[in-house]
Amino acid sequence: MSFTVNKKGTVCCPQGFQAAGVTAGLKRSGLPDMALITSDIPAEAAAAFTVNVFAAAPVQWDRAVMARGGKISAVIVNSGNANACTGPHGLEDARNMAAEVATRLQLDPQAVLVSSTGRIGVPMPMGIINQGIKLAVQGLTRDGGDVAARAIMTTDTVPKHLSVSLPLGGVTVTIGGMTKGSGMIAPQMRPCQPPQATMLAYVTTDAAIERSALQACLARSLDRSFNRIIVDGDTSTNDTFIALANGAAGNALIHDGTPEWESFCAAFDHVVGTLAKEMVLDGEGVTRFVELNVHGAPNADDARRVAEAIARSPLCKTAWFGGDPNWGRILAAAGYSGVQFEPGRVNLDYSGVAIVRQGRDAGTLEEAQVKPLKEREIQIDLDLGSGPGAFTIWTCDLSYEYVKINADYHT
Amino acid sequence: MSFTVNKKGTVCCPQGFQAAGVTAGLKRSGLPDMALITSDIPAEAAAAFTVNVFAAAPVQWDRAVMARGGKISAVIVNSGNANACTGPHGLEDARNMAAEVATRLQLDPQAVLVSSTGRIGVPMPMGIINQGIKLAVQGLTRDGGDVAARAIMTTDTVPKHLSVSLPLGGVTVTIGGMTKGSGMIAPQMRPCQPPQATMLAYVTTDAAIERSALQACLARSLDRSFNRIIVDGDTSTNDTFIALANGAAGNALIHDGTPEWESFCAAFDHVVGTLAKEMVLDGEGVTRFVELNVHGAPNADDARRVAEAIARSPLCKTAWFGGDPNWGRILAAAGYSGVQFEPGRVNLDYSGVAIVRQGRDAGTLEEAQVKPLKEREIQIDLDLGSGPGAFTIWTCDLSYEYVKINADYHT
Repeated sequence: MSFTVNKKGTVCCPQGFQAAGVTAGLKRSGLPDMALITSDIPAEAAAAFTVNVFAAAPVQWDRAVMARGGKISAVIVNSGNANACTGPHGLEDARNMAAEVATRLQLDPQAVLVSSTGRIGVPMPMGIINQGIKLAVQGLTRDGGDVAARAIMTTDTVPKHLSVSLPLGGVTVTIGGMTKGSGMIAPQMRPCQPPQATMLAYVTTDAAIERSALQACLARSLDRSFNRIIVDGDTSTNDTFIALANGAAGNALIHDGTPEWESFCAAFDHVVGTLAKEMVLDGEGVTRFVELNVHGAPNADDARRVAEAIARSPLCKTAWFGGDPNWGRILAAAGYSGVQFEPGRVNLDYSGVAIVRQGRDAGTLEEAQVKPLKEREIQIDLDLGSGPGAFTIWTCDLSYEYVKINADYHT
Repeated sequence: MSFTVNKKGTVCCPQGFQAAGVTAGLKRSGLPDMALITSDIPAEAAAAFTVNVFAAAPVQWDRAVMARGGKISAVIVNSGNANACTGPHGLEDARNMAAEVATRLQLDPQAVLVSSTGRIGVPMPMGIINQGIKLAVQGLTRDGGDVAARAIMTTDTVPKHLSVSLPLGGVTVTIGGMTKGSGMIAPQMRPCQPPQATMLAYVTTDAAIERSALQACLARSLDRSFNRIIVDGDTSTNDTFIALANGAAGNALIHDGTPEWESFCAAFDHVVGTLAKEMVLDGEGVTRFVELNVHGAPNADDARRVAEAIARSPLCKTAWFGGDPNWGRILAAAGYSGVQFEPGRVNLDYSGVAIVRQGRDAGTLEEAQVKPLKEREIQIDLDLGSGPGAFTIWTCDLSYEYVKINADYHT
């Protein structure tokens, strides 16, 4: 690694960024529920959004802003209300959130992005929202990254943020990131479509980088991170991934495809990959993290289909929760994925322990099969023996706690 | 209805059938674990099997037998072991089960179908199996239908069986049926493929019917029953649906497409539809049955995709468990199904109560929204307002009990 990692780093670590997290009153808990990120210098931006037909009002606002191609100076985020399925009035509310921030910071509303997360279908309480924006603007500081990461949480149990720094052409460039999301998490990972995100994630950097190069970096990174995680298999209406680059580090402008771009992307990947993995680990009710590697599929898309079927299977997920080495469920899920392969060539390993060979029990004693499944992190390797296709998904178990959280959800 | 229903009827109600259910010793519980159905007269047969790549050994045996087109005299079924992912030896075991039954009943082994259900990947204990076959042959009676239905149960809590009778050309024809299945239940409902089944189901009839007419009846019935249910979204390696028609009623032979065939099919549909609904109601940990009707999709296949996304959504299923009217989850699932429609035209009702109108909250008070969700049976109508496509799925909630059953599964 040609970069250094600051595990406590935030979106404020890059030069020229400030953040705030405040309690507007959207959550019953009284915890912080609105975050604001600003850049002193208007920043180049790249973004990806949900493909859900019911894209939330803030997603519709952001798409329109991004389509204009202008620079971005602020991102306002609220938790506690998704502003989704709220009709034309909801879109008006998203626009008014941007306008309120713009007025208070003396910006063009088109320089303000908006994100919301929380319950779907409830009108935005704009009095509370506007009060929160006022507090957030007043609260902006260079130390606000941690509380901002807390303010975007819903059922998350820990804030998720970090930063990395790397030398680039004689100067130090820093990338900070934060994310939230622990339920309704499943990227709709179809290739040949625009980049998609499946949760809220924000990356800031003081690098000077071309907008197209930043967008390419974000798209590549998505496919190596958020686009390979599945918590529960539900894809949200509000998923948003935004990157802002303000150039305050003073490096020579990074162009797409250059060695500098590759170095930048590697560091960017690390930030986003770490956040994605932390998201799975903090998934609703999660007790086990599963790295699921499918090899030997006819092609990569087939490998992805097999991996998705396993990662979405309630029977596999509950077996992982129970620490049950019930490999038949994994093979069954692969078998109904729609992908064709030769069952007699299938091998399966749990964290390096042989479980299935040639489609049958490998003969490993049950105690040895169970041991890796009792760990918090499990690596599952499924080799279909039918081609070069490979795909990795990061996923998790399905526990009582998941049911409890979601059978009684009112933010 | 031009037929009469006997809710306590069994596969032995049609003339010329016998059955047995015995305890061979495959289940730890000591409950009956092997069933045998025989027809005094060799019967025409129709069948459908799982499309899972890891089709179990008995499914492979049955497919080969059915491909020969001969008549069937016996079906042997065991619970407690799936004989799936057991390699060439497993196939040998399935063949030996048929041979053992054939020897004891003086039949051709090719007149014997075999089904297994239980844990995947464990070799069949053939000593126990053969002892069970001996007991089952000894135990055959005209009253054995109820205990046979009990013997095929795994995590089922109640046996599921019934019969119907109908007048046909001056004689009375009877159809009996039984089924099992409460987990790993999700038909892979792709049109333009051969009929598929997703559990174990057996229908007997004393009607005289052409083999092709029986197969057509079974295929049509599947699409109206088992092919529209989803319990947990996992599709088994062992799914089997077999119909036997021995002609003992003495009716004039039924040909495909005739009025007599239509009458027979209507009664057959009732048997199979009732069994399918009972299967969902007895699904693992199920507390609520949901009839999910999707209308107004661009076409029927799109309606099916939307219905499947909702029926598989852990967030929708846990909300139903909690009696939570969280309609945003239903709309979100429709929105990520991959089907395109106009979000502003979507209406949603819970058991006739208006929940969403034009993509937004219908304004119904929360108490009125909650009421239908507290019932054991819920009807959900989702109108996408975007075309003529409609599809209905029978599904259920996801409870603590489902997690409990499947986090610690050893039959």
